[in-house]
Amino acid sequence: MKAVYLDNNATTRVDPAAVAAMLPFFTEQFGNASSMHAFGSEVGGAVLKGRRQLQALLGAQFDHEIVFTGGGTESDNTAILSALETQGARNEIVTSAVEHPAVLALCAWLEKSRGIKVHYIGVDARGRLDVEAYRKALSPRTAIASIMWANNETGTIFPVEMLAELAHEAGALFHTDAVQAVGKIPMNLKETAIDMLSLSGHKLHAPKGIGALYVRRGVRLRPLIRGGHQERGRRAGTENAPGIVALGVAAELAQQHINDENTRVRAMRDRLEQGLLQRIGNSFVAGDVENRLPNTANVAFEYIEGEAILLLMNKAGIAASSGSACTSGSLEPSHVLRAMKVPYTAAHGAIRFSFSRENTDEDVDHVLEVMPGIIARLREMSPFWDGKNAGQSGFAPTYA
Amino acid sequence: MKAVYLDNNATTRVDPAAVAAMLPFFTEQFGNASSMHAFGSEVGGAVLKGRRQLQALLGAQFDHEIVFTGGGTESDNTAILSALETQGARNEIVTSAVEHPAVLALCAWLEKSRGIKVHYIGVDARGRLDVEAYRKALSPRTAIASIMWANNETGTIFPVEMLAELAHEAGALFHTDAVQAVGKIPMNLKETAIDMLSLSGHKLHAPKGIGALYVRRGVRLRPLIRGGHQERGRRAGTENAPGIVALGVAAELAQQHINDENTRVRAMRDRLEQGLLQRIGNSFVAGDVENRLPNTANVAFEYIEGEAILLLMNKAGIAASSGSACTSGSLEPSHVLRAMKVPYTAAHGAIRFSFSRENTDEDVDHVLEVMPGIIARLREMSPFWDGKNAGQSGFAPTYA
Repeated sequence: MKAVYLDNNATTRVDPAAVAAMLPFFTEQFGNASSMHAFGSEVGGAVLKGRRQLQALLGAQFDHEIVFTGGGTESDNTAILSALETQGARNEIVTSAVEHPAVLALCAWLEKSRGIKVHYIGVDARGRLDVEAYRKALSPRTAIASIMWANNETGTIFPVEMLAELAHEAGALFHTDAVQAVGKIPMNLKETAIDMLSLSGHKLHAPKGIGALYVRRGVRLRPLIRGGHQERGRRAGTENAPGIVALGVAAELAQQHINDENTRVRAMRDRLEQGLLQRIGNSFVAGDVENRLPNTANVAFEYIEGEAILLLMNKAGIAASSGSACTSGSLEPSHVLRAMKVPYTAAHGAIRFSFSRENTDEDVDHVLEVMPGIIARLREMSPFWDGKNAGQSGFAPTYA
Repeated sequence: MKAVYLDNNATTRVDPAAVAAMLPFFTEQFGNASSMHAFGSEVGGAVLKGRRQLQALLGAQFDHEIVFTGGGTESDNTAILSALETQGARNEIVTSAVEHPAVLALCAWLEKSRGIKVHYIGVDARGRLDVEAYRKALSPRTAIASIMWANNETGTIFPVEMLAELAHEAGALFHTDAVQAVGKIPMNLKETAIDMLSLSGHKLHAPKGIGALYVRRGVRLRPLIRGGHQERGRRAGTENAPGIVALGVAAELAQQHINDENTRVRAMRDRLEQGLLQRIGNSFVAGDVENRLPNTANVAFEYIEGEAILLLMNKAGIAASSGSACTSGSLEPSHVLRAMKVPYTAAHGAIRFSFSRENTDEDVDHVLEVMPGIIARLREMSPFWDGKNAGQSGFAPTYA
C-alpha cells in the first residue's frame, strides 16, 4: 500500500541531500569547529557556509545575525526570556492566544512564577489576529511582542511586518515564531522591523535537534545557555556541525523550491481541500483561506472524533494530525480552534493535512478516494450523528 | 601520512554503528515520537531503547531518570538553575575552580546578575579537590554543590560519591558534570547519592547536539526550556530521535568497551606519557597520576608555547589540544593549570593527549617519534630557553 505523508507541519522527512552533506561531519571532519587540527579544519568553514545559506533564505543582512540553537522551542524561550532582561523596567509580554506551546507554556510560567503580565491577543473565526486589540495592548510597559508568522494548525499567516512596526512604535522588541513559515513563504528580514525570529530545522527537511534564532544586529541578547564562547557568546555548547551543515543545505533547497511551494504544493492542497468539501457534507475549512501557508489545510468533519479519523486514515496509509502533535494525547480540542470559537462538534473532528514538496498528485487522489468512506463509517457509529444533522451546522464555514 | 587523533576529550569520532543506527530516523521513521501514524510508529520505541541503553551505562535505577537535552552545557545549566528555584531559601552554590566553562560561566553570571554567592573550591598541585574546604563551604545556605566527575584537561577524577554524601548531610543537592567520565569509567548511580549528572553525546562517539541530564527520581526539576510535554515536561521540544538512537548505541558500545578503556587505552596512554618524559627533558605530567581517567595525559613542556607545539604536531599529522578547545584563541594559560599553580613557563606549553578505543599502538609510536624533534626545534627558537634551564624547573613534577 502506498504511504502518504501529510503531516509536514509536525515534522518533515530529512532531504537525502541534507543527510549526505552531514555524513562526513560525523566520521571524518568530526573535530570541534574551534580546534586547530586537520580533523576540524573544514568544520569552521562548513558552519559558516550553513550560516550563510540560512541567512540567504531569511534575507538577513548579516550572517552573524543567525544564532544556531537546539531547536525552535529553545529559540522561542531564548528570545522572550532575553527581552525580559534587556528591556529595563519593561516587563509585559504581548502575544497571541494561538501561539505554539513553546511560547504559551513559557508565558504561563512567567505569569505564575514571576507575576509577569501577559496579554493574549485573540483571533476571529478565521484565525486572524485582532490587530486593534494588539495595538491597545502595546504600551511603555511592553518588553516584547511575540506573534507567530504562521499558525501551525491552520496555516493562517499573521501580518508580522506590520505588527513589528507597531511594536517598535511602542518601544518594544518584536519576536516571531516562524517555525512554520520559514521555507514556505519568501522572507526578506532586512526589509522588516522584526528583531528576532525562531526557526526549527526539522520543519524544513533538516534534522531534529538543530534550529536557529535570528537576532537583528544591535539587538541585545542574553543567552539562555551559558558556557563556552560559541556563537559569539550567545549560545554556549559545542556547535552541532553536522546539524548546521544539514540545515544549510535544507535552507538552500527550500529557497530553490519556494516557488514550487507556492504553485505546485498550493495546487495540491487546494485540490485536496475542495475535493473533500465537495465529497463530504458537514465539513469546513478552519483558518484564513485568503492568507494561509500554501501547504496547510485544516478540515473539520463535524460530529466525529479526530483521533478515530486518524486511526482509520493510518490504516489506509495516510499520515496527518488532529490538533497539533504536541498536544495529542489530551482529549481537549486544540487551543487554536477554541480561540477561533470553532464549535466543539466540529473542532473535535478537525484534521490537519500538511504538504511538502515531496507530495504528489497521486497522494491527493488517494486521500480523496478513501476519506469519504472513513468519515461516513465513523458518522454511522457516532451518537451525535443521525443523518438529520446534515447541513444544519451552526459553524460558519470559511469558504462562504 | 597517517593521521593520529588524540583530542578525544574535545570531541570524538561518531562510531559508524551509531551513524548507521540513526540513518533510518532521518528519512524513513522520521515522524514525531508522539505521532499516531506509521511514519512515527517505531520512533517512540527507539527513543525508549536509547533511554534504556543510557540508563544501563549509568547504572541508573529508572529509565525515566534520563532527560535528553541538546548537550552537556544545556544539562549543566539546567541542573544548577533548577536547584536555585527548587531549594527554597537556599541560594548558594559550591563548585570547584576547575570546572568546565559550562558551569563556571553560568556561576559568574549568577554572581554578577543575581548576587548569588558561589564558593569555588581550589585544588592542589596535582589537581585534587580540597575536600576540607568543600566540607566547610557547605552550609544550610547551599542550594547545590556541582563538582565535575573528571577534569577535562588533566583527567583527574574527583571523589563524587563522597562529595555527594557530604552535600546531602548539609541538605544540598549534588550535581556532577560527568561529560568526561561517562563511558570511560564504570558508574552505578543507583548506589550513589548523586542527584543530577550531565553528559554529552559527542564525548563518547555519539553525535554533537545530543546530551542528557540524569535526574534522580524524587528530585524536583524546573525545566530550562518550556513548551510541549516531551521528556515528561522536563525538557520541551521535539525529541531528537536520531540523536537519541545514536547516543543509545554509543552508550552500549561504551559499556562493552569499558574494560578495554581501562586496560588497552590506559596502557597506550601510559606508554605515551612515560615515553615523552623519558625522551624530553623539562617535561612534566599535570594532574593526579594515581586517580585519572585512563585516556588522558596532560604533559607540560617547559619554556615553549602550546599553540606552536600544536601547529607542528598538526603538520606531523597529530591532533591534540592545549588547554581546552573551548578557551583556545586566548593567550591566558588554562584556568585549570592556573588553579593547580603550574608555573606559567610550564602551563603555556601544556599539551593534552586524549585517547579513545579507536587509537592504536602505532599512534603512540608515531607521537613518540616526532615529539622530541618538535619540542627541541621550538626550544631552539624560545627566548626563555638557553639549554641551561634543563632540569632547573621550579615546577614539582607529579611523577616524583
